[in-house]
Amino acid sequence: MTPPNRQLVNERVQGEEAGPGDVSAMLERGRTLATPELRAAVERLAPPMDTVAAYHFGWIDAEGRPSDSGGGKAVRPALALLSAEVTGGAPETGLPGAVAVELVHNFSLLHDDLMDGDEQRRHRDTVWKVHGPAQAILVGDALFALAGEILLELGTPEAGRATRRLTMATRKLIDGQAQDISYEHRDRVTVEECLEMEGNKTGALLACAASIGAVLGGADDRTADAMEAYGHHLGLAFQAVDDLLGIWGDPRATGKQTWSDLRQRKKSLPVAAALGSEGPAAARLAKLMTEDAKKSQAEFEDFHEAEFAERAALIEEAGGREWTAQEAQRQHATALAALDSVEMPGGVRDQFAALADFVVVRRG
Amino acid sequence: MTPPNRQLVNERVQGEEAGPGDVSAMLERGRTLATPELRAAVERLAPPMDTVAAYHFGWIDAEGRPSDSGGGKAVRPALALLSAEVTGGAPETGLPGAVAVELVHNFSLLHDDLMDGDEQRRHRDTVWKVHGPAQAILVGDALFALAGEILLELGTPEAGRATRRLTMATRKLIDGQAQDISYEHRDRVTVEECLEMEGNKTGALLACAASIGAVLGGADDRTADAMEAYGHHLGLAFQAVDDLLGIWGDPRATGKQTWSDLRQRKKSLPVAAALGSEGPAAARLAKLMTEDAKKSQAEFEDFHEAEFAERAALIEEAGGREWTAQEAQRQHATALAALDSVEMPGGVRDQFAALADFVVVRRG
Repeated sequence: MTPPNRQLVNERVQGEEAGPGDVSAMLERGRTLATPELRAAVERLAPPMDTVAAYHFGWIDAEGRPSDSGGGKAVRPALALLSAEVTGGAPETGLPGAVAVELVHNFSLLHDDLMDGDEQRRHRDTVWKVHGPAQAILVGDALFALAGEILLELGTPEAGRATRRLTMATRKLIDGQAQDISYEHRDRVTVEECLEMEGNKTGALLACAASIGAVLGGADDRTADAMEAYGHHLGLAFQAVDDLLGIWGDPRATGKQTWSDLRQRKKSLPVAAALGSEGPAAARLAKLMTEDAKKSQAEFEDFHEAEFAERAALIEEAGGREWTAQEAQRQHATALAALDSVEMPGGVRDQFAALADFVVVRRG
Repeated sequence: MTPPNRQLVNERVQGEEAGPGDVSAMLERGRTLATPELRAAVERLAPPMDTVAAYHFGWIDAEGRPSDSGGGKAVRPALALLSAEVTGGAPETGLPGAVAVELVHNFSLLHDDLMDGDEQRRHRDTVWKVHGPAQAILVGDALFALAGEILLELGTPEAGRATRRLTMATRKLIDGQAQDISYEHRDRVTVEECLEMEGNKTGALLACAASIGAVLGGADDRTADAMEAYGHHLGLAFQAVDDLLGIWGDPRATGKQTWSDLRQRKKSLPVAAALGSEGPAAARLAKLMTEDAKKSQAEFEDFHEAEFAERAALIEEAGGREWTAQEAQRQHATALAALDSVEMPGGVRDQFAALADFVVVRRG
C-alpha cells in the first residue's frame, strides 16, 4: 500500500540538497530573527553560565573566541514564526515562542548528551566534555527556566497558554529520553514503542513549535491542536528519515560514519520493523542481535565493515527499510491532512507543505 | 549594635524545640494538604521516573517498599498556604503554589546532590547514588516541568503571574548553585558574596513560597513584592542560623557531624565574616585556611578534632560567630518589617511572625 505521493518524494530525493527556495528562505528568516533574541536571552545568565551556553550554541569556541559553528537547520524557530501567520498575524508575534522552543530544545540537548555520554555534537566537543558535568546540568536547567521567563514576561493570557503547551511538550521530551534510556537495556523494542519514543523525543517539540506562534496570536484550542498534530507527524516523518539515514545515509552528506546507528546498537524504526516481521531474514537478524547484545561496546566496535553490512542487508531483506520509508510517507501525509482542518492564508499553507516535503527528502 | 530582640531570641534558643504550638500546627497543615497533591503530581510521571521520585520524597525505600522517611519541615508549603490568607482567601487557594514550589525545591535538591557529589540526604542515599546520575537529571527535569504544569493548568491570569515569579525564583536558585560551585575553587569569599549566594539559594524560593498564595488569590504586585521581601529575608535568617549550626550545632540535634561545615571547607557566613575582620585571630585563620586549601579532601578529613576545634575557636575569636548571630537577627527584623507594609488579617500576620521567630531559634 504505497501512499500516492511516494513516487514524487522518491524523485525529489534525487533533487537538490538545500531544499526548495521557499524553504531556504523560511529557515533563513527563522535564524535571522531568532538568533539575536536568543543571544539576548543567554546574556541574562550569570557567569560562567552565559559563556558555557554561548559555547553550546556555537557562538564562541572552547577558548572563548568568537566563532560561528552554526546551530543546525533551525527548523523550530522557522516553524514558530510561520505559525504566527496562521492567524494572519506578523511572524514577529511568534518570536518569543521561537526563542522559548529553541531554549527548551537546547536544554534537552545539554542534558541528553551528558546522560548518553555523547562526546560530540555538530562536530564539536559537547558541553559536559569541555566544561564538566555540573555546568551541563546547570546551564540546561537555566535554559529551561529562561524559556518560561521569556514567554511569561509578555504578561498576556496567550503567553500563559503557550507556556502551558510548551511545558507539556517538555514533559513528553523527558518521557522520550526516559524511554530511550530504558530501551538501551532491552534486547528488542516493538515498532509501537519506537514510534511512541520518537513521538515524544522529536514530535512533541516540533508540535509545540508549529502551534506556539498561532497560540501567541490568539488562535483557539482547536486550531492549536490541529497545528500540534501537523508538527507531531512532521516530527515522526523527520525521525523516520533520520533513522534511514542513520543506517544507509551517505557519510559525506550526513557527517556520520557508515552504519552509524548500527554501530551504536540503536533500536531505531528499521530495526524494530525488521525484527517485527516474519521470515528467515528476520530470524537471522534476531539471532545476530541477541548475540550482539552480549558483547561489550569495544568488542562490538571492532566488527569488520562486512558484519555491519550484513546486518544492514538483513534489515533491508526483512522489510525494515521499505517499511520505514513508507512510514515517513504516511506521517508526511498525516501532517498535511492536519493542515486541512485549519483555515489560514494560502501562502502560509504552502510553506507548511513545502517544509513537510523538505523534511522527508533531506539527505543529511 | 545588638538588635533589640536579640535578648528575646537568645532566651528562646533555650526554649522548646518544636517551636510554638501555632507553628507546629501551621507546618502540619502544610504537610497534610500538600502531600496528597504532591503524590498525585508525581504519579503523572512515566515509569521509572515515578518510582525514582517517590524514593526521593521518602515515600518508598530503595527496594520499592512503602516507607515514611518524612520530607523535612515542609516550611515552603506551609508558607504558600498561609500566603493565600493574606488576601483573605482560603488556604487551599495557595495549594497549587505549595505543590509547585515544593516540586521546584526537590528538582534543585536532585540536581544539586549530583553536582556536589553528595551521597546522603536526610539520612538516606541520594537518588544519583541509588538510581544513577541519568535518573537524577531526568527526574529533576520532570519535577521542574511538573511545577509549571500544575500551576498553568489552572488557566487563570493569576496562575500565569505565579508561574512567572516561580520561574524567576528558579533562575535565582540556579544562579546560587553556580555561585556555590565557583566559590569552592576560591581561597576566600566576601560576606557580600556569601549573602548574595545564600539569598539566591535559600531566599529566592522562600520568597516565592511566601508570595505565591497571595498571587494566586489575586494580590497586586506591590503586595506580592512585599511578601517576597519577607520570604527573602526569612530565608537569609534561616541560612545564617544554618551556618551557625553547621559549625557549632549539637550533632544530636542537627544529625550532622561536629564542625560539619568546616570538614567540608564550606565558605559559610561565619567564615567569611571572620576572614573579613581585622586582628591576629583573622590573620591566623587566613593563614591556616590558605594551607588547608592546598590539601586534598582525604588529607583534610584526617585532621584531628583539635584542628577543627582550633579553626572554630579562631572564627569565634575573629567575631564570625557573633556577626552571624547578629545577621540572623537583622534579617529576622527586616522580614518582619516587610510584613508591616501589607494589610492582612491579624491572625495571619501573627503566624508569619511566629514562623520567623521559629526559624531563628531552631537548633537542628
